[in-house]
Amino acid sequence: MAATPVWSVDPRTGKQREVVTAEASPRDVDLAVRAAHSARAALAGSSARAAFLRAAAALLDGAAARIVETADAETALGPARLTGELARTTGQLRAFADLVEEGSHLDVRIDRADPALTPPRPELRRYKVPLGVVAVYAASNFPLAFSVPGGDTASALAAGCPVVVKAHPDHPATSELCGSLLRRAAESAGLPASVVHVVHGFDAGLELVRHPLVTAAGFTGSVRGGRALFDAAAARPVPIPFHGELGSLNPVVVTPAAAAERAEEIGSGLAGSVTLGAGQFCVKPGLVLVPEGPDGDRLADALAASLARTGPGVLLDHRMRENFLAGVAERAALPAVTAPVAPGPAGEHTVGPGYLSVPAADLLGGGGYEVLLEECFGPVTVLVRYAGREQAAAVLGLLDGNLSATLQLSAAEATGTTTADGPDGPDSPDAPFAAELIGLVTALAGRIVVNGWPTGVAVAPAQHHGGPYPAATSHSTSVGATAIERWLRPVAYQSVPDALLPPELREANPLGVPRRVTGAR
Amino acid sequence: MAATPVWSVDPRTGKQREVVTAEASPRDVDLAVRAAHSARAALAGSSARAAFLRAAAALLDGAAARIVETADAETALGPARLTGELARTTGQLRAFADLVEEGSHLDVRIDRADPALTPPRPELRRYKVPLGVVAVYAASNFPLAFSVPGGDTASALAAGCPVVVKAHPDHPATSELCGSLLRRAAESAGLPASVVHVVHGFDAGLELVRHPLVTAAGFTGSVRGGRALFDAAAARPVPIPFHGELGSLNPVVVTPAAAAERAEEIGSGLAGSVTLGAGQFCVKPGLVLVPEGPDGDRLADALAASLARTGPGVLLDHRMRENFLAGVAERAALPAVTAPVAPGPAGEHTVGPGYLSVPAADLLGGGGYEVLLEECFGPVTVLVRYAGREQAAAVLGLLDGNLSATLQLSAAEATGTTTADGPDGPDSPDAPFAAELIGLVTALAGRIVVNGWPTGVAVAPAQHHGGPYPAATSHSTSVGATAIERWLRPVAYQSVPDALLPPELREANPLGVPRRVTGAR
Repeated sequence: MAATPVWSVDPRTGKQREVVTAEASPRDVDLAVRAAHSARAALAGSSARAAFLRAAAALLDGAAARIVETADAETALGPARLTGELARTTGQLRAFADLVEEGSHLDVRIDRADPALTPPRPELRRYKVPLGVVAVYAASNFPLAFSVPGGDTASALAAGCPVVVKAHPDHPATSELCGSLLRRAAESAGLPASVVHVVHGFDAGLELVRHPLVTAAGFTGSVRGGRALFDAAAARPVPIPFHGELGSLNPVVVTPAAAAERAEEIGSGLAGSVTLGAGQFCVKPGLVLVPEGPDGDRLADALAASLARTGPGVLLDHRMRENFLAGVAERAALPAVTAPVAPGPAGEHTVGPGYLSVPAADLLGGGGYEVLLEECFGPVTVLVRYAGREQAAAVLGLLDGNLSATLQLSAAEATGTTTADGPDGPDSPDAPFAAELIGLVTALAGRIVVNGWPTGVAVAPAQHHGGPYPAATSHSTSVGATAIERWLRPVAYQSVPDALLPPELREANPLGVPRRVTGAR
Repeated sequence: MAATPVWSVDPRTGKQREVVTAEASPRDVDLAVRAAHSARAALAGSSARAAFLRAAAALLDGAAARIVETADAETALGPARLTGELARTTGQLRAFADLVEEGSHLDVRIDRADPALTPPRPELRRYKVPLGVVAVYAASNFPLAFSVPGGDTASALAAGCPVVVKAHPDHPATSELCGSLLRRAAESAGLPASVVHVVHGFDAGLELVRHPLVTAAGFTGSVRGGRALFDAAAARPVPIPFHGELGSLNPVVVTPAAAAERAEEIGSGLAGSVTLGAGQFCVKPGLVLVPEGPDGDRLADALAASLARTGPGVLLDHRMRENFLAGVAERAALPAVTAPVAPGPAGEHTVGPGYLSVPAADLLGGGGYEVLLEECFGPVTVLVRYAGREQAAAVLGLLDGNLSATLQLSAAEATGTTTADGPDGPDSPDAPFAAELIGLVTALAGRIVVNGWPTGVAVAPAQHHGGPYPAATSHSTSVGATAIERWLRPVAYQSVPDALLPPELREANPLGVPRRVTGAR
């Protein structure tokens, strides 16, 4: 049987651009995983890994024009956004190179022997070792930062794990281009090219998560696809960790005081966050609690005006466009839902942004409104108009896990001065409402934003991009320094002579790795 | 329908001692989980948690005589062992109290805002929050240290998670006694008693892992039982992490040089480790690679002599005794397997220790010998006689994941002096063999022991008690300080004003929590 061709498609026209490659057969996947597995010893040295990651960043930056052009032709995300995404991607690779050299991710702990204890304590030295081959499932909406050269790949390679990436069908040419650059970077750092492979095809993705030599997986995508792979990972004879980011509604709560103070600013800021990247961000605010009454109305008007000024956008592919239009139509058809600015088709290949609105009481009443609590990918958000903090809290109580939750607070609420000396006097319930909200959203989300917007996830040591299910299938992050922890496991060495210890654990600490030492010597 | 009674049974006689309580109905489990869930806010304060853990340790120590007597009557593990286990258990509770106050487990990271970056970086402050109610599945073989007041419970409570323990049927009276002491300790520290519950019954265990308000589980037990619960945890609408310790063979490799140097010492040491606690340790050495030839023979003779001097033992229950005898019989019936000291029944309720032996070539030949690679709970081990390091490496290549792996090395091998100036001169292959073995067993196990025995797992910050599947279903540990990481998830706060931050993240650091800070201020 002939191999299925993998086409690159232009979402602006729906036309096929070119055949990039063929879908991987089970044998192709097996060969890729075995080659990656054989390359893992070459990744053991931290200086070679750091050099590799830096070489990859340099090659990607050097090919920026071609990468951006290719990615734009496949995704319609635009050169500005893609140039920024590439900078984020190469910055991420360099940040992991720094981390690899610094070594804090190894979480080295040394307990010196203590013969005086009952029972006597032997010497224990613990660090973390790489798991082995990691499967990475690329995202549709970030052809670079969450795809072949993205955070999952960078953190896995930094950990010392070879990677097999299952490319996303929305950008196969970009995937192949980036894959070849990563492989060239490996060779330039003296490593075998086979530390990175790219495979294509839905079936290849399933083969990959089931392969006995695959030790862990990273995924960014939909609840349906992610859960199927999660289930396959858990059902293996030897189950493996599946770190998936599956879906998020990213609730926003606007307090009455914030609406009174900044209705227009919040409305237009919300429009910007909802329409960024044509609403195709994992952290797009999808449900916004806005107080009933004139301040909330002003906010909604500002949102409507800003959306009206935002031109139509091209979604990543035509299936996504159909799902978006169907999702909006299903929600707008609910009796209590209004569509002050209806998102919808704008030409054959584009969609216009919009928003829906529903009274909190209807949402809380059940009866078919649960669909409003599900993510709708694309440039739309749902305002939930609430009356009083109990109602706002009740709506938050309906939500599943989220990547982010955002609070829009008044200046007095934010500084905690409302109760004592705020504009509403000492009896104002505002300050406690802000504190209550922080508690409620901490239970719901992995990142809490105050007086900002959740879109734009900084790559930084303290970042967390994850959250309760379905935001993530594990308690790990896919952005930031701690993303590397997903690909490592601890090993403790008991009474192992110095000469036989890995360099990271030797008494003289030749690599200068940070360590926590207990007990005297 | 009447509730099923839970009997305490004396394994020394097989006689029922008393009805302790009744098995929990689905409604009982639901009530316990809901009560625990409601108590989680009370566990939020770190000083109250630390006080609770210390009060629990004090109450358990104060009731030592009664606890040891009750546990011995149900498990036949003997007062000496149980007294030691209780000390380990209360030491563990106190160590977690110290950790809670110190705060390093929160892994606080602070990135200050940096407006000069492209894009500008907002302020990020990250720490970890407790997951919620944790289900703990008690082990048969540690009625204290891995049961109601054991490491899973202690680490979960330390993390701020209420606990519902599913008691093991081998020690229901001990479980109830310890549970009541923990609940009394909670009240003495000003917390509701409902932060800890104990339930009994197989069905209750399944109900527990499926309960929507249960957020994670810890388990120590068999592959069969553990995998069934793991599968149930993964199949939930909202999957939860299941940290299970399921089974381990704990391989030992004796090098030819070590056998030449210390055959008798190794043989008798092995006998001690295999028969400790009647062979009912998770880290009992179950497969020992011993060189062919006279040095290996001397080791086997010393093992046989020591086993012959070890009296019969009582296993934890009669089903376990039957499984042990059937497991030994199945293995001994293989054509190439000999039983120089056959383990077997010694009276109606006891068993005698023993060992089996098989040539490595037969084990490597397949054909039904795979059962020798499975754990056999009880006082038996399997010597695999190997010829040459390639054969030893090939046998290690057959093994699944393990909690521990042990190397017995010669003095020269251990100090790494063989090649340069060892007894066999610079061309000796011994030093590289030791290094090769370290690499091979690191891939196989979570703890590597040199010239000691794996039984006796120190409770210490650098400890790791886990390993590749089926040793563990996750990459976490159930012993040592890092066991607390299982019950926490990170949350990042972006641009959240100081007054609204949790105390652990405030700029003034009122709790003095260790933190990693990047960026200037």
